[in-house]
Amino acid sequence: MSSEELAAWGQTTAAQVRKDLSHFGSFGKRGLGYQAGELRESLRTLLGIDRSWKVALVGAGRIGLALYEYPAFRSRGYDCVAIFDSDPSKIGTAWGDQSICALEVFEEVIKERDVELVILAIPADSAQEVASRAVEAGVNGILNFAPIRLNVPPEVPVEDVNLVIELEALSFQITQRT
Amino acid sequence: MSSEELAAWGQTTAAQVRKDLSHFGSFGKRGLGYQAGELRESLRTLLGIDRSWKVALVGAGRIGLALYEYPAFRSRGYDCVAIFDSDPSKIGTAWGDQSICALEVFEEVIKERDVELVILAIPADSAQEVASRAVEAGVNGILNFAPIRLNVPPEVPVEDVNLVIELEALSFQITQRT
Repeated sequence: MSSEELAAWGQTTAAQVRKDLSHFGSFGKRGLGYQAGELRESLRTLLGIDRSWKVALVGAGRIGLALYEYPAFRSRGYDCVAIFDSDPSKIGTAWGDQSICALEVFEEVIKERDVELVILAIPADSAQEVASRAVEAGVNGILNFAPIRLNVPPEVPVEDVNLVIELEALSFQITQRT
Repeated sequence: MSSEELAAWGQTTAAQVRKDLSHFGSFGKRGLGYQAGELRESLRTLLGIDRSWKVALVGAGRIGLALYEYPAFRSRGYDCVAIFDSDPSKIGTAWGDQSICALEVFEEVIKERDVELVILAIPADSAQEVASRAVEAGVNGILNFAPIRLNVPPEVPVEDVNLVIELEALSFQITQRT
């Protein structure tokens, strides 16, 4: 496959494809292009998606449920092994094969089930406390839906998903054009 | 307020704050810093968030509902004026004060209610068709949750939210560190 073909597929330019891939090693052969199967496997290993990841979901509300039932998560190897909530009426009830746990047993369950990633789908006022407890319990990364900047050690990566900022990015672009 | 204070608040550096703001005009005074109230109003105008925006939600599923009930949307001026779905069992039922409309009346409702932004919370296989119809109907921007790159004219900005990519970004960072 040529970098032109890869570029068309990713809606970018051939030069950008070559530049991006060069950050991670030497993949293609000049004049011959890329061996697509090998490239895919190398990128999967590089991205850490050649394996499955144990995920815990904190917050069994609407966003939590939407995420839990998001088919692409499981198909890409993200396996939800625990769900937590603070609402007594939810604790002990089941989503699929997962029984919702109390936050009181958070550390214990995280360690027992070897959770690596935590998804925080909880309000801003409780997110920092849970994030700190997750780090303390040995979690390696956090996907944060709470509209707050989490203060965690630099070795624990955090990805923030802030839906208001996405809408504001649109408003900004539209405003610039009118 | 000094650029140092703004930087601490935004978890960045003072130099970055000055550089970022300089892209949009001349805000602060050397040695005096920024007049916070004025700066806030200028940025709100610049971002297009000094006004409200009429939004339509396409897809009355789990993600759609989570978005519809997301309190920060309304409080930041994003007003959902229409909801669409293709499922006959949902059409005509109400979420809050909004009755769910059929996609058959999409263009008509978009125009009647002056919709400016569309949120696509639908599967990949129907997203392109609805996006094209939204553009045709005069929508100015699209927030896309479908895992597909939309093909729309360059004057209509699209923001993609791909939750799998957010998780993969974490996996990548963790893999790089271990």
